[in-house]
Amino acid sequence: MQLGKIIGQVVSTRKEGKVQGLKILVARYLDEHLQETGKTAACVDTVQAGVGDVVLLCSSSSARMTAMTQGVCTDNAVVGIVDTVSSGSKILYQKSDNR
Amino acid sequence: MQLGKIIGQVVSTRKEGKVQGLKILVARYLDEHLQETGKTAACVDTVQAGVGDVVLLCSSSSARMTAMTQGVCTDNAVVGIVDTVSSGSKILYQKSDNR
Amino acid sequence: MQLGKIIGQVVSTRKEGKVQGLKILVARYLDEHLQETGKTAACVDTVQAGVGDVVLLCSSSSARMTAMTQGVCTDNAVVGIVDTVSSGSKILYQKSDNR
Amino acid sequence: MQLGKIIGQVVSTRKEGKVQGLKILVARYLDEHLQETGKTAACVDTVQAGVGDVVLLCSSSSARMTAMTQGVCTDNAVVGIVDTVSSGSKILYQKSDNR
Amino acid sequence: MQLGKIIGQVVSTRKEGKVQGLKILVARYLDEHLQETGKTAACVDTVQAGVGDVVLLCSSSSARMTAMTQGVCTDNAVVGIVDTVSSGSKILYQKSDNR
Repeated sequence: MQLGKIIGQVVSTRKEGKVQGLKILVARYLDEHLQETGKTAACVDTVQAGVGDVVLLCSSSSARMTAMTQGVCTDNAVVGIVDTVSSGSKILYQKSDNR
Repeated sequence: MQLGKIIGQVVSTRKEGKVQGLKILVARYLDEHLQETGKTAACVDTVQAGVGDVVLLCSSSSARMTAMTQGVCTDNAVVGIVDTVSSGSKILYQKSDNR
Repeated sequence: MQLGKIIGQVVSTRKEGKVQGLKILVARYLDEHLQETGKTAACVDTVQAGVGDVVLLCSSSSARMTAMTQGVCTDNAVVGIVDTVSSGSKILYQKSDNR
Repeated sequence: MQLGKIIGQVVSTRKEGKVQGLKILVARYLDEHLQETGKTAACVDTVQAGVGDVVLLCSSSSARMTAMTQGVCTDNAVVGIVDTVSSGSKILYQKSDNR
Repeated sequence: MQLGKIIGQVVSTRKEGKVQGLKILVARYLDEHLQETGKTAACVDTVQAGVGDVVLLCSSSSARMTAMTQGVCTDNAVVGIVDTVSSGSKILYQKSDNR
C-alpha cells in the first residue's frame, strides 16, 4: 500500500455499471516523510475519507478485496485513514484531534 | 483509476479472438490539474467515449471487471466519463454542456 | 494495452514447462505518435506478428487471457496487429500494403 | 520480489474490515547493493519484522498469497527477513548477529 | 517478460511458509541490446539458473503460473534461460558454449 492525502473528488454520471454509486476520491501519493509526490490516483472510498485526510491506498487486484469493491472495475481504493506514522520512537505524522 | 483524455482510436483487424469487435481508444493520462502527461494507453471503451472526453481509466486485472471486458485480454479500459473534478468547493474541471 | 513495434525474437530451450513451444518476440513500446520509447518487453506472440509490425501489447494477468496463453507464466502478449491509429480525421499511422 | 529495509510503522484505526488487526510496516526499497532508493511502501508484516531489518517485499496479487493476507486488501507484504545477499563468493549483505 | 541477468542470490531463513525451500536469485534487468539497466528483482528460480545467465523474468500474478510457484507469495520468477536474442538475421546475444 501507499500513503496518500485526499485532495479532491471525481463525479462521473456515465460510468460502467459496477462503479455506479461509489464515491471516487482523488488522492496524491505521499512519501514516508509525508511529503507530497507528483503522483495521483482516482480511488474508490471505502472508509468515508475526506479532503485532507492521510490515508492508506491499495492498488491493482487487491483494491477489489474490500466489501464495497468486490468485482468492481477499480484498481485503486482508499482502505484506511492513518492515525500515526512512526519510525521507532519518532512520530513522523499524527492525525490532529479536530479531524 | 487515473484521469485521462481520449485522443484517438486504434483499428486492428488481426486480433486475438477475445478482443474482436471491441472499440479501442487511445487515452492520454492527465494529472489532477487535468494537465496532460506523457503517458498514454490503448483502452477498451465501455462507455461510448469520444475524442476529447475526460474519462476514468482502469488498468490491470480490474480492467476486465466490466460487462464488456470479462475474460478479455485487455489491461486497460475506459470505465467512466468525468463530469467534474473538484477539490473542496473549488471546481478543477467541468464537462462543457455541448459535449 | 500499449502500442509496440516488434524488433526481435528470443530463443530459450531451457524454459519452465508451460512456456515451451510459444514464440517469444521482443517489442519496443511506442508512444501515441508511434515514436519508439526506451521500454521493451519479451512477449508471447498470439497473432503471428513479425519484425517491424506495429502491434497491441497486453500485460499483467490480462496477458494470460488469450487462447494460447491461458495458465502460462507470461506477463506480456502480442494481442493484435495494428492497421491504423487515428486522432479524429487525422491518420497517425497506417500499415503499409506490402506487409 | 524486492529487497527493502523496514523504516517505520503505520497505525490506522479506521480501516476497511479485512485489514483490521494486521501490522503495517513502512519499508524503503533497496537496490542490489543494499543502497536505499527513494521508493517506499506500506506493507503487511507476515514475519514479525522490525525497524532496521532487511526484508523481502512482495507486491500485487502475490502479496495476498500468505496465510495472513488471504483475501486482504493489501498489495504489499513483508514475506522474508534476509540473512545474506551474495554474488558468487562475494557477500553483499549479512545480517548482524545481534539482531 | 523481461530479459535479465542473474547477479546473485538471497538467503532468508525466516520466510513466510510458502516461500520456504525455494531458491531466490537476484536478477538485473537488461534492455534489448542486453545492456544492464538499474532495475533489479529478487526472483524465484524455476529453471536452475546461475550467476551470469541471461534469463527470462516473469512478474506479477504470472510469476505464480509455474509448477514450482503455484500459490506462492512471489511476484517474480525466472522462467527461462536465453539461448539467443535476434533481430531479423542479426544476432544480438548468443549464449556461450561453455555455460
